Amino acid sequence: MANSTSGDSVTSRLVRVLETFTPTRTAQTAAEIGRRAGLPSSTAHRIVGELVDAGLLERDDDRRVRVGMRLWELATRSSHALRLRQAALPAMERVQARVREHTQLAILEQGEALFLERLSDPEAGANITRVAGRLPLHACSSGLVLLAFGDRALQESVLAGPLRPLSRRTPTDPAVLRRKLDEVRTLGHALARGYVEEVSTGLAVPVRDEGGRAVAALSVVLPHDSPTELALAELRRAARSTERALAHVR
Amino acid sequence: MANSTSGDSVTSRLVRVLETFTPTRTAQTAAEIGRRAGLPSSTAHRIVGELVDAGLLERDDDRRVRVGMRLWELATRSSHALRLRQAALPAMERVQARVREHTQLAILEQGEALFLERLSDPEAGANITRVAGRLPLHACSSGLVLLAFGDRALQESVLAGPLRPLSRRTPTDPAVLRRKLDEVRTLGHALARGYVEEVSTGLAVPVRDEGGRAVAALSVVLPHDSPTELALAELRRAARSTERALAHVR
Repeated sequence: MANSTSGDSVTSRLVRVLETFTPTRTAQTAAEIGRRAGLPSSTAHRIVGELVDAGLLERDDDRRVRVGMRLWELATRSSHALRLRQAALPAMERVQARVREHTQLAILEQGEALFLERLSDPEAGANITRVAGRLPLHACSSGLVLLAFGDRALQESVLAGPLRPLSRRTPTDPAVLRRKLDEVRTLGHALARGYVEEVSTGLAVPVRDEGGRAVAALSVVLPHDSPTELALAELRRAARSTERALAHVR
Repeated sequence: MANSTSGDSVTSRLVRVLETFTPTRTAQTAAEIGRRAGLPSSTAHRIVGELVDAGLLERDDDRRVRVGMRLWELATRSSHALRLRQAALPAMERVQARVREHTQLAILEQGEALFLERLSDPEAGANITRVAGRLPLHACSSGLVLLAFGDRALQESVLAGPLRPLSRRTPTDPAVLRRKLDEVRTLGHALARGYVEEVSTGLAVPVRDEGGRAVAALSVVLPHDSPTELALAELRRAARSTERALAHVR
């Protein structure tokens, strides 16, 4: 029935179905899902039907399906994502109240920065990150912090490339990136002016465990030429506060 | 391979595995999962192995597994839960900054109130709700609002009971609950003094769609005898703001 080594177990097909849903593609027909997941139409219809029966997908009025509230509930209620963001949220709210720009929480996930939370001031500027969205590690301040205070092997793997640019200012030269990571370790924070978008500057600090490893990054996104002193002081305070809160929930 | 009508499809077994994880049981061995899900040990081990391969579960150092970050990401990034909470969050932050008590967002899910978001002031009092947690509709202010401004058939089904109490003050008499729902519709908000816990009072307002149906409830949890005027004014403003934000993201 299932064969996990071939990569084509029922579970893996189910994941392929779920992966066809994205922030901008929230409703699809079973036929569309099958095409995008590379599954035969009959298989796609059957899996979608089972997921609907289980409440993991929900049917629309017009025969399209969406990610179900039940899937969100099961994925969230006992997740590390929830514990981390509950530990960080009060501190993030203070940062946002003082700095009044986008305030973000990210972790390392499968070699990328995964954003667990984002608070946005209605007046704040451009920011392409989303909750549950990802960015490459070398191309954003959160990723630089996760990389600089992370696993040595991961650093070498990222430095080995490819280092794809998001903007003209994203570092794509391994030597430049290596110096940048040294700088991040020395300063204890990462400043990424224009790396993600030329109009904005990312500033991130690590949330560290007892061993000094970054378990998360707290960051703000500022307009490109903003001063960073206030934001840096607030982020550092928020990181300490999150570390204390995490020590309690463990 | 799969039989969705028998309720024992691969998908439904996978859901039974995921359901064994709760806010207080975040790490389990495959054997524990099998026992709690009512699955043969070999089946549990195989499904857990497939879920780990797919990244939906993650292995601990000590052979236990946890809900994986990948599952959270897939369940969240295109979910209605995320859209709703992103629409409500700025307004909730204002409520919390003014009222300085627990501020919550709930929706109707499978006949219960499911809490999508909770902001808590470090100084705020007791509150048993959690993000991705549930409460019975008749027993909390959010549920009363979702019920009063919801589907008539659902109201009758809840009124038909059983109406289990959470505290000595939870309404368990259908006639009392029916009058309460009338009151909620008349006033446009629900006040639940001591329904969930005797020490606290819930106050909720509906977030409504164009047809007047409650799509969500915004609520605060106050100490039992608190005045409610400020909180009510703030909640009403937050509901209007959330309704406007939702009109944009649809």
